[in-house]
Amino acid sequence: MYADRIRHPALQQKLMPASDAASLFRDGMTVGMSGFTRAGDAKALPLALVERACREPFSLTLLTGASLGNDSDGLMANAGLLARRMPFQADAALRHKINNGEVMFIDQHLSETAEQLRSGALHPVDIAVIEAVAITEDGGIVPTMAVGNSASFVQQAKQIIVELNLSAPLALEGLHDIYVPQPRPGRAPIPLVEPGQRIGTTAIPVDPARIAAIVVTASPDSPSNVLPPDEETDAIARHVIAFLEGEVAAGRMTEKLLPLQAGIGTIANAVLHGLTQSSFRDLTMYSEVLQDSAIELLDSGQLALASASSITLSAAKHEHFLRNLERYRERIVLRPQEISNHPEIVRRLGIIGLNTALEFDIYGNVNSTHVGGTHMMNGIGGSGDFARNGELAIFVSKSVAKDGAISSVVPMVAHVDHTEHDVDVLVTEWGLADLRGLAPRERALLIIERCAHPSYRPALLAYYEEALRRGGQTPHVLEKALSWHEQYWLYGSMNYKNLSI
Amino acid sequence: MYADRIRHPALQQKLMPASDAASLFRDGMTVGMSGFTRAGDAKALPLALVERACREPFSLTLLTGASLGNDSDGLMANAGLLARRMPFQADAALRHKINNGEVMFIDQHLSETAEQLRSGALHPVDIAVIEAVAITEDGGIVPTMAVGNSASFVQQAKQIIVELNLSAPLALEGLHDIYVPQPRPGRAPIPLVEPGQRIGTTAIPVDPARIAAIVVTASPDSPSNVLPPDEETDAIARHVIAFLEGEVAAGRMTEKLLPLQAGIGTIANAVLHGLTQSSFRDLTMYSEVLQDSAIELLDSGQLALASASSITLSAAKHEHFLRNLERYRERIVLRPQEISNHPEIVRRLGIIGLNTALEFDIYGNVNSTHVGGTHMMNGIGGSGDFARNGELAIFVSKSVAKDGAISSVVPMVAHVDHTEHDVDVLVTEWGLADLRGLAPRERALLIIERCAHPSYRPALLAYYEEALRRGGQTPHVLEKALSWHEQYWLYGSMNYKNLSI
Repeated sequence: MYADRIRHPALQQKLMPASDAASLFRDGMTVGMSGFTRAGDAKALPLALVERACREPFSLTLLTGASLGNDSDGLMANAGLLARRMPFQADAALRHKINNGEVMFIDQHLSETAEQLRSGALHPVDIAVIEAVAITEDGGIVPTMAVGNSASFVQQAKQIIVELNLSAPLALEGLHDIYVPQPRPGRAPIPLVEPGQRIGTTAIPVDPARIAAIVVTASPDSPSNVLPPDEETDAIARHVIAFLEGEVAAGRMTEKLLPLQAGIGTIANAVLHGLTQSSFRDLTMYSEVLQDSAIELLDSGQLALASASSITLSAAKHEHFLRNLERYRERIVLRPQEISNHPEIVRRLGIIGLNTALEFDIYGNVNSTHVGGTHMMNGIGGSGDFARNGELAIFVSKSVAKDGAISSVVPMVAHVDHTEHDVDVLVTEWGLADLRGLAPRERALLIIERCAHPSYRPALLAYYEEALRRGGQTPHVLEKALSWHEQYWLYGSMNYKNLSI
Repeated sequence: MYADRIRHPALQQKLMPASDAASLFRDGMTVGMSGFTRAGDAKALPLALVERACREPFSLTLLTGASLGNDSDGLMANAGLLARRMPFQADAALRHKINNGEVMFIDQHLSETAEQLRSGALHPVDIAVIEAVAITEDGGIVPTMAVGNSASFVQQAKQIIVELNLSAPLALEGLHDIYVPQPRPGRAPIPLVEPGQRIGTTAIPVDPARIAAIVVTASPDSPSNVLPPDEETDAIARHVIAFLEGEVAAGRMTEKLLPLQAGIGTIANAVLHGLTQSSFRDLTMYSEVLQDSAIELLDSGQLALASASSITLSAAKHEHFLRNLERYRERIVLRPQEISNHPEIVRRLGIIGLNTALEFDIYGNVNSTHVGGTHMMNGIGGSGDFARNGELAIFVSKSVAKDGAISSVVPMVAHVDHTEHDVDVLVTEWGLADLRGLAPRERALLIIERCAHPSYRPALLAYYEEALRRGGQTPHVLEKALSWHEQYWLYGSMNYKNLSI
């Protein structure tokens, strides 16, 4: 059966129903699953595990590439399956469990999980569950729409379960480039010097004897859930494009720019979409995820090629992508997330990183993860890999949220994911603040003037002026620094004080 | 004159007094000076500039490697010479001006300044002032006890002033390894794969025509001002050694460990000193600075070789080092700080980074720079280069300061330099918290129990328990999160509440 997809004949005998494969798991095991930003995740095994957990409670440490689709994270969390979860998630039900303290969530830089597994800093993976297009003649696993941490999970796991997805066309084979850094000490340089360069194999090498089960599904990836561009994201895109045009005009970059990275989500997708209206040509992407906007830029011819760890598209764009796969084959490379986000490569190529902030403060510190400073949204993802080591770290946000009740520009962020040392450019629909080479006191005035919503500017300026009277490199009024968040907590609006006057 | 030190004959005519060289500077210029952690700084030029500024006020943007010695930073700041200063300083008078807002201080990761100059993100260097042992036959500048950013300053500056220091022995020639990464795009991998490997030249290459002046001095480097180990630093060292022994026992490292980095200052020096009492052998260092402890470990034979960007020693150790230079030549390499701290190399080698925290919070966020959250101490230095990209990020601190009035473990740090994502291990004299693979709620209990001073543990636990009732991934009581800092600000002690009961 499935001879075109199971090309190593002896592996035919490993075919089994997902429910049988689910019986391989033991309470307390560490499991590594494929899946990155709703793409390339195993579909049948999570459901089979949930079913088993309903009969017979047990729990696991679950590692993935990034977020899973198909509500798998939520279903597993609600079944009590997830004791520990890393390095990223984006599921409402799981988020609830995390913020209740029921699931221990370890929020990691996406390039680091594989390194920590390799060094033994994390418990080794017992079972890897990998969605695949096919298994090659010599046992190599061909991933589907994401690579994520799959190659490292396979390298380390005692047992491997392959989930063959019949809905993933065989033509995806050849899109992937699997390279795993050597152990330390004695590691060689990673030979990648161009965004589109291939340095590895098209399948994940594995001794077929380690494949314990093969499960077959035909469930598709969940479509991406990004919202279409709106007036504000259009304005943000215009500011970013004008800034990049200025960089070209100043001779700091050519019109090809440097390789672009764009984080997952609506705003980053909209900014990239905005590039279709720009005059840039021969662009490249070296990103962790490709969204609809990347396909649009490939179609418009402005994007020459794109490297990432996953492809996450809307339903319509997904169909378009698969129908025209031949056209994209030579221009897209999918890599392990350790390579798509690797500090060595990010610094060497000089990535322009574009990521979304939940909020930022008047000195340029960014909160990407914690609503109100305490409650996890999704996780830091790869934003830190790119912001720390790239050429330019651009963070974008709408200036207000909740109909103006929340200002995204605050006196002090209530949680820091990216420090002032790492943040080069901040953008809202009102404007762009270029912080490079500026001291905190200079940053404050620029950020308030360019990025804050006009209704919050007077209060931010008043805070800054009061802080200045206390002095310092980074002036603050400590007893008021988090008062905006407290206001929101107590009264449902950061604007409460102003409204009550 | 000085034929052994000025070996390019035509350069003899560039010899001039420092006061003449000082007349080359214009108001508003950007100046790059050698000097890193009080080593290898120009001695005569800063004084000549101060003298000129007293007659004729003007100001500069000053870039260096890191901190200068000989009170140069303070003298220049007090003469009104410094409009802008980056990327690091450690001078009391300059610090005062910075915190008053009189000098704009840009606090940078030490690996990034050269990159930002190369990309044009910072204003180009007009004049480079480089302390040298000698100028070679073809014009190459041989640095003294530090390389810092000198190679990049020389590459970019329109004019170069060399300060020949006759007190620096000619035998220092050959110690340095000058390699500067290529521009982007098209940069090749940095070929360094072993801590002691030489990949460049022993002098900074330069077209002799660009050397505008040669000034001669014989003033020595300022001795290091680290304090001797004490009971608490001994205890911190014991905890770190026990932890590293545990890593070896668990099979995560061999007895050679991985290359060590230790930040500037008393505590990191004391911890490294403690290694002389350990059973580790064949150690290597890949650090930004070598202090007395590195020389002790080389002398004891436990340290096989050491790579850094500068050597900063006490007066006695400095004399010992120079007297025995031949013995150290083959075991020490001095590199540009861009290479000593480079993300590519730090990740490839898997550095064990050991740096000092001013304070850290119950979730593992570290403040390295801002006293009370607002006032600059020295700067982040290279701690972020190593903590983000290395194998292990260890931060050390005494549990209390100011005779117990300040707890170094707080509910929330008032300034974040290193986020929970980057901090692996925290150590005080009371114990060590290994945070790897732990969620914030798990970290909190461990940090309070292992690291906090016993007199502060009940209050930290009470805070954490109150925060837990509000929930979240990282529970906080926002209106009390910074109250410990406010207490200190108002009453001179974080313990005020407890004392007043």
